[in-house]
Amino acid sequence: MKFIIQRDRLVQSVQDVMKAVPSRTTIPILTGIKLVANEEGVALTGSDSDISIESFIPAQENDQEVVEIIQPGAIVLQAKFFSEIVKKLPTDLVEIRVENHLQTVIRSGNSEFNLNGLDAEEYPHLPQIEEDNIFKIPTDLLKAMIRQTVFAVSTSETRPILTGVNWKVENGELICIATDSHRLALRKARIETIAEDSYNVVIPGKSLNELSKILDDQNEPVEIVITENQVLFKAENLLFFSRLLEGNYPDTSRLIPTDSKTEVVVQTKEFLQAIDRASLLAREGRNNVVKFSIIENNVVEISSNTPEIGNVVEEVQSSSIEGEDLKISFSAKFMMDALKTLEGTDINISFTGAMRPFIIKPLNDDSILQLILPVRTY
Amino acid sequence: MKFIIQRDRLVQSVQDVMKAVPSRTTIPILTGIKLVANEEGVALTGSDSDISIESFIPAQENDQEVVEIIQPGAIVLQAKFFSEIVKKLPTDLVEIRVENHLQTVIRSGNSEFNLNGLDAEEYPHLPQIEEDNIFKIPTDLLKAMIRQTVFAVSTSETRPILTGVNWKVENGELICIATDSHRLALRKARIETIAEDSYNVVIPGKSLNELSKILDDQNEPVEIVITENQVLFKAENLLFFSRLLEGNYPDTSRLIPTDSKTEVVVQTKEFLQAIDRASLLAREGRNNVVKFSIIENNVVEISSNTPEIGNVVEEVQSSSIEGEDLKISFSAKFMMDALKTLEGTDINISFTGAMRPFIIKPLNDDSILQLILPVRTY
Repeated sequence: MKFIIQRDRLVQSVQDVMKAVPSRTTIPILTGIKLVANEEGVALTGSDSDISIESFIPAQENDQEVVEIIQPGAIVLQAKFFSEIVKKLPTDLVEIRVENHLQTVIRSGNSEFNLNGLDAEEYPHLPQIEEDNIFKIPTDLLKAMIRQTVFAVSTSETRPILTGVNWKVENGELICIATDSHRLALRKARIETIAEDSYNVVIPGKSLNELSKILDDQNEPVEIVITENQVLFKAENLLFFSRLLEGNYPDTSRLIPTDSKTEVVVQTKEFLQAIDRASLLAREGRNNVVKFSIIENNVVEISSNTPEIGNVVEEVQSSSIEGEDLKISFSAKFMMDALKTLEGTDINISFTGAMRPFIIKPLNDDSILQLILPVRTY
Repeated sequence: MKFIIQRDRLVQSVQDVMKAVPSRTTIPILTGIKLVANEEGVALTGSDSDISIESFIPAQENDQEVVEIIQPGAIVLQAKFFSEIVKKLPTDLVEIRVENHLQTVIRSGNSEFNLNGLDAEEYPHLPQIEEDNIFKIPTDLLKAMIRQTVFAVSTSETRPILTGVNWKVENGELICIATDSHRLALRKARIETIAEDSYNVVIPGKSLNELSKILDDQNEPVEIVITENQVLFKAENLLFFSRLLEGNYPDTSRLIPTDSKTEVVVQTKEFLQAIDRASLLAREGRNNVVKFSIIENNVVEISSNTPEIGNVVEEVQSSSIEGEDLKISFSAKFMMDALKTLEGTDINISFTGAMRPFIIKPLNDDSILQLILPVRTY
């Protein structure tokens, strides 16, 4: 194997595939990055066996040479050292060549590294996926849907299925749901699909977080292929595979109240900042519980109290309060997480009593819903 | 006590004095910030008893009202909460007032905090310092002198005196020296002084680091007063006190070689980057030892080797090599630390053999000197 490549492209691809490379693993070769050079270009692969990422650097792009392939071949290089080295190389072009016994020379300017490589034949193969049934989502929408749901997955392994996000495709619509059983996030959107297929799978939250970091902010479509135990995301020059979680995701539809007794409209940012300040003196429980109560003149009061330190009272003006008066307590952290995902300037909060879950939605937008279970303190 | 103050000024001052507030202490009141309001303005104080910082916010500045003092007084507020609160307050103006029983109300817009204060009478007094003998240094020069020496102090408490920087004032010159006994940094500069005093004190490295963070990058002079066991730095609206270290600083002048057998001139940045890359594969010892050797044609070779991973060879062009050939090994970390403090584009390295300390200086600049002890591997 021997090729000469633009350093910046190499650095970017290495950085992308590194997101799948585990720092510790029982399969030693997975601490490496696989490089495969052929006439079309160079493919880099990283994998922790749950997530696998392949980044492809084409030999030619827009009539410009990105890689000069001198001899095709393949090698696995230790990811930790290889990634640090390429970042610090002195010149714009880098030569990589494999000599006998897997010795790999990396040369740039007056700098020459000699790394002990591993046999690429021993690197696990990527999942083989039939690409019959593909659906497409614009990259920016996909990233938004991930961001608006993945924060609500469970971090506890007591119910492993809840550490993933439930993706349902039906009737040309994608519905993403995450819950840790104390709160729930739901986001839906129309998708471009060829077949009228329906799916119901659970994607690990960690996979979605890593995917989101790699994807650029643009509106090119990402192609998605779902199989029985894998999902594949295809973007330009990028393949991202993730294992699916096994098991049935709980039916969450019954959790979401359909009626409401109190409806409150507030400005998202103002409300978020008031919750944030009130949480500073809320040390009851680990999630900073604050109290919410409706007072006269369309004003909502947020308060918290830690006797040995002090107390705080925040007043937030509401543009509309309808229904019963209410005093309720909830986790400030959960509320802030939910509010940060809502893009509108105003939100509607629907309560059905101090002991029941409540719903936060942007005003006049049914594509996203955040649900929080209250805490009993009043 | 009652006053109304510009939030941004309060935030800045709180942030400055926080640098002295300990997170844990055996003197509980020191976890607080003392606020004193009088007709001239508001003074904030933080202290861990080694370092004390007073930040003053004048009532008037450039004919503009910064603080409206309604009633003078004093209080101590828990630093951790007070600092988080002021950062997040919603409006540009903040009212702070003490009610009976040290209860302190912080009000901004529709936000009202009530904090349990502590009695300001119980807060330790700042050191009393006679300001007879003052010398002055421009702020940016002071910050440079700190940055160029403090990194070399010892982090080990086995010889506590080496955790400080030795400041010597004599003949209108300030000399700063730091060493951890494996390397040494020396920086000197002319200073503005009234009396022909001389001093020889040791300032804790931690104090100098914190001071440097607080001082703005500008060339207004900082006034410095040295007493038997304290040093006071006075900048605009800021007093920074530090305890001095007790004991005699070792005489370092004999450590510094006066002759040399090999002189090498290289470009600072190119040399630094080559060392940085070579250190990537240098895992012998915890400080990443690299090898330096002079090869033909005015070329210096930097190399390292970890058999199980690989090796690296860097060639650096020298504009001048004079004297004996040389192979020497040293800590890449120490070399990079030293090079980062040198501002010139070219440096001169003077060796007196592979086992002797060597000196790095900017070309044609005697105000700064970095010394490193080699490691025996060749």
